[in-house]
Amino acid sequence: MGVIDFTKAPVKTGSIYPKPYDAEMAGRWSIRLGEAGGLTQFGVNVVVLEPGAKSSLRHWHLNEDEFVMITQGTCTLVDDDGRHEMSVGACAAFPAGEENGHHFLNETDEEVRFLVVGTKAATEVATYADIDLKVEMKDGTATFSRKDGTPYEGDEQ
Amino acid sequence: MGVIDFTKAPVKTGSIYPKPYDAEMAGRWSIRLGEAGGLTQFGVNVVVLEPGAKSSLRHWHLNEDEFVMITQGTCTLVDDDGRHEMSVGACAAFPAGEENGHHFLNETDEEVRFLVVGTKAATEVATYADIDLKVEMKDGTATFSRKDGTPYEGDEQ
Repeated sequence: MGVIDFTKAPVKTGSIYPKPYDAEMAGRWSIRLGEAGGLTQFGVNVVVLEPGAKSSLRHWHLNEDEFVMITQGTCTLVDDDGRHEMSVGACAAFPAGEENGHHFLNETDEEVRFLVVGTKAATEVATYADIDLKVEMKDGTATFSRKDGTPYEGDEQ
Repeated sequence: MGVIDFTKAPVKTGSIYPKPYDAEMAGRWSIRLGEAGGLTQFGVNVVVLEPGAKSSLRHWHLNEDEFVMITQGTCTLVDDDGRHEMSVGACAAFPAGEENGHHFLNETDEEVRFLVVGTKAATEVATYADIDLKVEMKDGTATFSRKDGTPYEGDEQ
Protein backbone atom coordinates (compact mmCIF):
# COMPACT_ATOMS: atom_id res chain seq x y z
CA MET A 1 0.00 0.00 0.00
CA GLY A 2 1.02 3.67 0.13
CA VAL A 3 -1.30 6.46 -1.05
CA ILE A 4 -4.93 5.55 -0.32
CA ASP A 5 -7.32 5.87 -3.27
CA PHE A 6 -10.43 7.45 -1.72
CA THR A 7 -12.54 6.34 -4.71
CA LYS A 8 -11.84 2.71 -3.81
CA ALA A 9 -12.51 3.04 -0.07
CA PRO A 10 -15.60 1.16 1.15
CA VAL A 11 -18.47 3.36 2.29
CA LYS A 12 -20.57 2.34 5.29
CA THR A 13 -24.12 3.58 5.73
CA GLY A 14 -26.88 2.67 8.16
CA SER A 15 -26.62 1.74 11.83
CA ILE A 16 -26.15 -1.36 13.99
CA TYR A 17 -28.40 0.16 16.66
CA PRO A 18 -31.67 -1.60 17.54
CA LYS A 19 -34.98 0.20 17.13
CA PRO A 20 -35.87 2.92 17.93
CA TYR A 21 -32.29 4.23 18.14
CA ASP A 22 -31.29 3.29 14.57
CA ALA A 23 -33.50 6.10 13.25
CA GLU A 24 -31.40 8.67 15.10
CA MET A 25 -28.44 7.93 12.83
CA ALA A 26 -29.90 9.29 9.61
CA GLY A 27 -27.48 11.53 7.70
CA ARG A 28 -24.32 9.84 8.97
CA TRP A 29 -22.04 7.68 6.83
CA SER A 30 -18.36 6.81 6.83
CA ILE A 31 -15.46 6.18 4.47
CA ARG A 32 -13.34 3.23 5.60
CA LEU A 33 -9.81 4.44 4.92
CA GLY A 34 -7.97 1.94 7.10
CA GLU A 35 -9.67 -0.96 5.37
CA ALA A 36 -8.83 0.59 1.98
CA GLY A 37 -5.22 0.85 3.12
CA GLY A 38 -4.94 -2.72 4.37
CA LEU A 39 -4.65 -1.80 8.05
CA THR A 40 -5.86 -4.33 10.62
CA GLN A 41 -4.58 -3.14 14.03
CA PHE A 42 -6.71 -0.03 14.29
CA GLY A 43 -9.67 1.34 12.37
CA VAL A 44 -9.46 4.63 10.46
CA ASN A 45 -12.63 6.18 9.10
CA VAL A 46 -13.74 9.55 7.82
CA VAL A 47 -17.19 10.12 9.29
CA VAL A 48 -19.51 12.39 7.29
CA LEU A 49 -22.28 14.23 9.15
CA GLU A 50 -24.91 15.93 7.07
CA PRO A 51 -26.60 18.98 8.66
CA GLY A 52 -28.51 17.80 11.73
CA ALA A 53 -26.77 14.42 11.94
CA LYS A 54 -24.95 12.91 14.91
CA SER A 55 -21.96 10.55 15.01
CA SER A 56 -23.48 8.01 17.44
CA LEU A 57 -25.42 7.73 20.65
CA ARG A 58 -23.34 9.21 23.45
CA HIS A 59 -21.05 6.33 24.53
CA TRP A 60 -17.73 5.28 26.00
CA HIS A 61 -15.47 2.30 25.16
CA LEU A 62 -14.18 -0.22 27.68
CA ASN A 63 -11.19 -1.62 25.77
CA GLU A 64 -10.45 0.63 22.82
CA ASP A 65 -8.67 3.99 22.64
CA GLU A 66 -10.34 6.49 20.30
CA PHE A 67 -8.96 9.61 18.58
CA VAL A 68 -10.79 12.24 16.50
CA MET A 69 -9.61 15.15 14.30
CA ILE A 70 -12.10 17.49 12.61
CA THR A 71 -11.29 17.76 8.88
CA GLN A 72 -14.22 19.77 7.48
CA GLY A 73 -16.75 22.19 8.95
CA THR A 74 -17.59 22.90 12.56
CA CYS A 75 -19.16 20.38 14.89
CA THR A 76 -20.13 20.10 18.53
CA LEU A 77 -18.63 17.51 20.84
CA VAL A 78 -20.93 16.63 23.71
CA ASP A 79 -19.28 14.81 26.61
CA ASP A 80 -19.50 14.73 30.39
CA ASP A 81 -17.80 18.14 30.51
CA GLY A 82 -20.52 19.75 28.39
CA ARG A 83 -20.59 21.09 24.83
CA HIS A 84 -17.43 21.93 22.90
CA GLU A 85 -17.40 23.61 19.47
CA MET A 86 -14.65 22.11 17.32
CA SER A 87 -13.41 23.42 13.97
CA VAL A 88 -10.96 22.03 11.40
CA GLY A 89 -7.79 20.73 13.04
CA ALA A 90 -9.28 20.41 16.52
CA CYS A 91 -8.71 16.99 18.13
CA ALA A 92 -10.21 14.89 20.90
CA ALA A 93 -9.09 11.72 22.67
CA PHE A 94 -11.07 9.12 24.59
CA PRO A 95 -8.84 6.62 26.43
CA ALA A 96 -10.18 3.08 26.84
CA GLY A 97 -12.17 2.60 30.03
CA GLU A 98 -12.62 6.29 30.80
CA GLU A 99 -16.35 6.68 31.49
CA ASN A 100 -16.78 9.87 29.47
CA GLY A 101 -19.78 9.39 27.17
CA HIS A 102 -19.29 11.40 23.99
CA HIS A 103 -20.66 12.05 20.53
CA PHE A 104 -20.41 14.67 17.79
CA LEU A 105 -23.31 16.73 16.45
CA ASN A 106 -23.54 18.71 13.24
CA GLU A 107 -25.68 21.67 14.24
CA THR A 108 -24.64 23.73 11.19
CA ASP A 109 -26.01 24.00 7.65
CA GLU A 110 -22.82 22.60 6.09
CA GLU A 111 -21.45 19.06 5.88
CA VAL A 112 -19.04 18.09 8.67
CA ARG A 113 -16.28 15.50 8.32
CA PHE A 114 -13.92 14.09 10.92
CA LEU A 115 -11.22 11.46 11.02
CA VAL A 116 -11.69 8.82 13.72
CA VAL A 117 -9.15 6.21 14.79
CA GLY A 118 -9.96 3.34 17.15
CA THR A 119 -8.09 0.27 18.29
CA LYS A 120 -9.47 -3.07 17.10
CA ALA A 121 -9.78 -5.05 20.33
CA ALA A 122 -10.76 -8.74 20.26
CA THR A 123 -13.85 -7.94 22.32
CA GLU A 124 -15.34 -4.57 23.14
CA VAL A 125 -18.10 -3.15 25.27
CA ALA A 126 -19.60 0.26 24.53
CA THR A 127 -21.87 1.79 27.15
CA TYR A 128 -24.43 4.45 26.22
CA ALA A 129 -24.40 7.33 28.66
CA ASP A 130 -27.94 8.69 28.30
CA ILE A 131 -30.01 5.49 28.08
CA ASP A 132 -30.08 2.03 29.71
CA LEU A 133 -28.16 0.26 26.92
CA LYS A 134 -24.77 -1.27 26.23
CA VAL A 135 -23.36 -3.39 23.42
CA GLU A 136 -20.79 -6.18 23.38
CA MET A 137 -18.85 -6.65 20.13
CA LYS A 138 -17.24 -10.05 19.55
CA ASP A 139 -16.26 -11.83 16.33
CA GLY A 140 -18.11 -9.21 14.31
CA THR A 141 -21.37 -9.70 16.20
CA ALA A 142 -23.04 -6.93 18.23
CA THR A 143 -25.14 -7.98 21.24
CA PHE A 144 -27.21 -5.25 22.88
CA SER A 145 -28.33 -5.48 26.50
CA ARG A 146 -29.42 -3.39 29.45
CA LYS A 147 -26.59 -2.11 31.65
CA ASP A 148 -27.23 -4.90 34.17
CA GLY A 149 -26.81 -7.49 31.41
CA THR A 150 -30.46 -8.43 30.88
CA PRO A 151 -31.49 -8.65 27.22
CA TYR A 152 -32.65 -5.51 25.44
CA GLU A 153 -36.21 -6.05 24.26
CA GLY A 154 -36.97 -2.60 22.99
CA ASP A 155 -37.77 0.91 24.15
CA GLU A 156 -40.66 3.18 23.25
CA GLN A 157 -40.31 5.18 20.06
CA MET B 1 -10.10 13.50 28.44
CA GLY B 2 -12.06 14.97 25.54
CA VAL B 3 -10.84 17.99 23.57
CA ILE B 4 -7.03 18.00 23.34
CA ASP B 5 -5.31 21.23 24.34
CA PHE B 6 -2.57 21.64 21.72
CA THR B 7 -0.73 24.11 23.94
CA LYS B 8 -0.22 21.37 26.53
CA ALA B 9 0.89 18.66 24.08
CA PRO B 10 4.52 17.59 24.46
CA VAL B 11 6.80 18.59 21.58
CA LYS B 12 9.53 16.22 20.42
CA THR B 13 12.59 17.51 18.60
CA GLY B 14 15.85 15.86 17.58
CA SER B 15 16.43 12.31 16.34
CA ILE B 16 17.19 8.87 17.73
CA TYR B 17 19.31 8.09 14.65
CA PRO B 18 23.01 7.41 15.11
CA LYS B 19 25.59 9.60 13.38
CA PRO B 20 25.79 10.57 10.55
CA TYR B 21 22.06 10.05 9.92
CA ASP B 22 20.84 12.20 12.83
CA ALA B 23 21.92 15.32 10.94
CA GLU B 24 19.49 14.51 8.13
CA MET B 25 16.55 15.13 10.44
CA ALA B 26 17.05 18.87 10.91
CA GLY B 27 13.84 20.87 10.51
CA ARG B 28 11.52 18.08 11.67
CA TRP B 29 9.64 18.07 14.97
CA SER B 30 6.42 16.59 16.25
CA ILE B 31 3.48 17.38 18.54
CA ARG B 32 2.49 14.37 20.62
CA LEU B 33 -1.30 14.54 20.58
CA GLY B 34 -1.98 10.97 21.67
CA GLU B 35 0.18 11.41 24.74
CA ALA B 36 -1.59 14.71 25.51
CA GLY B 37 -4.91 12.88 25.22
CA GLY B 38 -3.95 9.99 27.49
CA LEU B 39 -3.92 7.36 24.72
CA THR B 40 -1.66 4.34 25.16
CA GLN B 41 -2.70 1.80 22.50
CA PHE B 42 -1.52 3.78 19.48
CA GLY B 43 0.59 6.86 18.99
CA VAL B 44 -0.84 10.01 17.38
CA ASN B 45 1.52 12.80 16.39
CA VAL B 46 1.40 15.86 14.17
CA VAL B 47 4.73 15.93 12.36
CA VAL B 48 5.98 19.36 11.26
CA LEU B 49 8.38 19.55 8.31
CA GLU B 50 10.07 22.86 7.67
CA PRO B 51 11.04 23.58 4.04
CA GLY B 52 13.66 21.02 2.98
CA ALA B 53 13.01 18.66 5.90
CA LYS B 54 12.14 14.95 5.76
CA SER B 55 10.02 12.84 8.09
CA SER B 56 12.54 10.02 8.57
CA LEU B 57 14.97 7.81 6.73
CA ARG B 58 13.01 5.67 4.28
CA HIS B 59 11.83 2.70 6.37
CA TRP B 60 9.19 0.03 6.93
CA HIS B 61 7.79 -1.44 10.17
CA LEU B 62 7.66 -5.15 11.03
CA ASN B 63 4.93 -5.14 13.70
CA GLU B 64 3.14 -1.80 13.61
CA ASP B 65 0.47 -0.47 11.24
CA GLU B 66 0.99 3.18 10.23
CA PHE B 67 -1.48 5.76 8.86
CA VAL B 68 -0.81 9.30 7.59
CA MET B 69 -3.08 12.22 6.63
CA ILE B 70 -1.66 15.49 5.29
CA THR B 71 -3.08 18.43 7.27
CA GLN B 72 -1.09 21.42 5.95
CA GLY B 73 0.86 22.17 2.77
CA THR B 74 2.00 19.81 0.05
CA CYS B 75 4.56 17.09 0.55
CA THR B 76 6.12 14.26 -1.37
CA LEU B 77 5.79 10.64 -0.32
CA VAL B 78 8.67 8.51 -1.56
CA ASP B 79 8.06 4.76 -1.44
CA ASP B 80 8.88 1.68 -3.51
CA ASP B 81 6.34 2.82 -6.10
CA GLY B 82 8.11 6.14 -6.65
CA ARG B 83 7.25 9.73 -5.79
CA HIS B 84 3.71 10.85 -4.90
CA GLU B 85 2.69 14.47 -4.36
CA MET B 86 0.17 14.70 -1.51
CA SER B 87 -1.88 17.74 -0.51
CA VAL B 88 -4.21 18.44 2.41
CA GLY B 89 -6.58 15.55 3.06
CA ALA B 90 -4.54 12.96 1.14
CA CYS B 91 -3.87 9.78 3.14
CA ALA B 92 -1.42 6.88 3.08
CA ALA B 93 -1.32 3.52 4.85
CA PHE B 94 1.60 1.21 5.59
CA PRO B 95 0.48 -2.17 6.96
CA ALA B 96 2.82 -3.92 9.40
CA GLY B 97 5.32 -6.20 7.72
CA GLU B 98 4.83 -4.84 4.21
CA GLU B 99 8.35 -4.15 2.94
CA ASN B 100 7.54 -0.77 1.39
CA GLY B 101 10.16 1.70 2.59
CA HIS B 102 8.64 5.18 2.80
CA HIS B 103 9.21 8.71 3.99
CA PHE B 104 7.80 12.19 3.43
CA LEU B 105 9.77 15.15 2.05
CA ASN B 106 8.94 18.84 2.18
CA GLU B 107 10.28 20.13 -1.13
CA THR B 108 8.23 23.35 -0.94
CA ASP B 109 8.91 26.78 0.59
CA GLU B 110 6.05 26.41 3.09
CA GLU B 111 5.71 24.43 6.31
CA VAL B 112 4.13 20.98 5.92
CA ARG B 113 2.20 19.17 8.66
CA PHE B 114 0.77 15.68 8.72
CA LEU B 115 -1.02 13.49 11.23
CA VAL B 116 0.59 10.09 11.80
CA VAL B 117 -0.90 7.18 13.73
CA GLY B 118 1.04 4.05 14.62
CA THR B 119 0.32 1.04 16.79
CA LYS B 120 2.38 0.73 19.97
CA ALA B 121 3.74 -2.81 19.74
CA ALA B 122 5.70 -4.34 22.64
CA THR B 123 8.71 -4.75 20.37
CA GLU B 124 9.29 -3.29 16.94
CA VAL B 125 11.84 -3.53 14.14
CA ALA B 126 12.16 -0.78 11.55
CA THR B 127 14.30 -1.50 8.49
CA TYR B 128 15.82 1.33 6.46
CA ALA B 129 15.35 0.76 2.75
CA ASP B 130 18.25 2.74 1.29
CA ILE B 131 21.08 1.92 3.71
CA ASP B 132 22.37 -1.13 5.61
CA LEU B 133 20.64 -0.29 8.91
CA LYS B 134 17.77 -1.46 11.05
CA VAL B 135 16.58 -0.64 14.57
CA GLU B 136 14.93 -2.73 17.26
CA MET B 137 12.75 -0.88 19.75
CA LYS B 138 12.06 -2.57 23.09
CA ASP B 139 11.17 -1.12 26.49
CA GLY B 140 11.87 2.37 25.19
CA THR B 141 15.39 1.51 24.05
CA ALA B 142 16.50 1.72 20.40
CA THR B 143 19.24 -0.67 19.26
CA PHE B 144 20.68 -0.05 15.79
CA SER B 145 22.36 -2.80 13.80
CA ARG B 146 23.26 -3.86 10.27
CA LYS B 147 20.54 -5.79 8.44
CA ASP B 148 22.33 -9.09 9.22
CA GLY B 149 22.23 -8.24 12.94
CA THR B 150 25.87 -7.27 13.42
CA PRO B 151 26.37 -4.10 15.50
CA TYR B 152 26.29 -0.72 13.75
CA GLU B 153 29.63 0.97 14.32
CA GLY B 154 29.19 3.97 12.10
CA ASP B 155 29.09 5.01 8.46
CA GLU B 156 31.08 7.72 6.67
CA GLN B 157 29.67 11.24 6.86
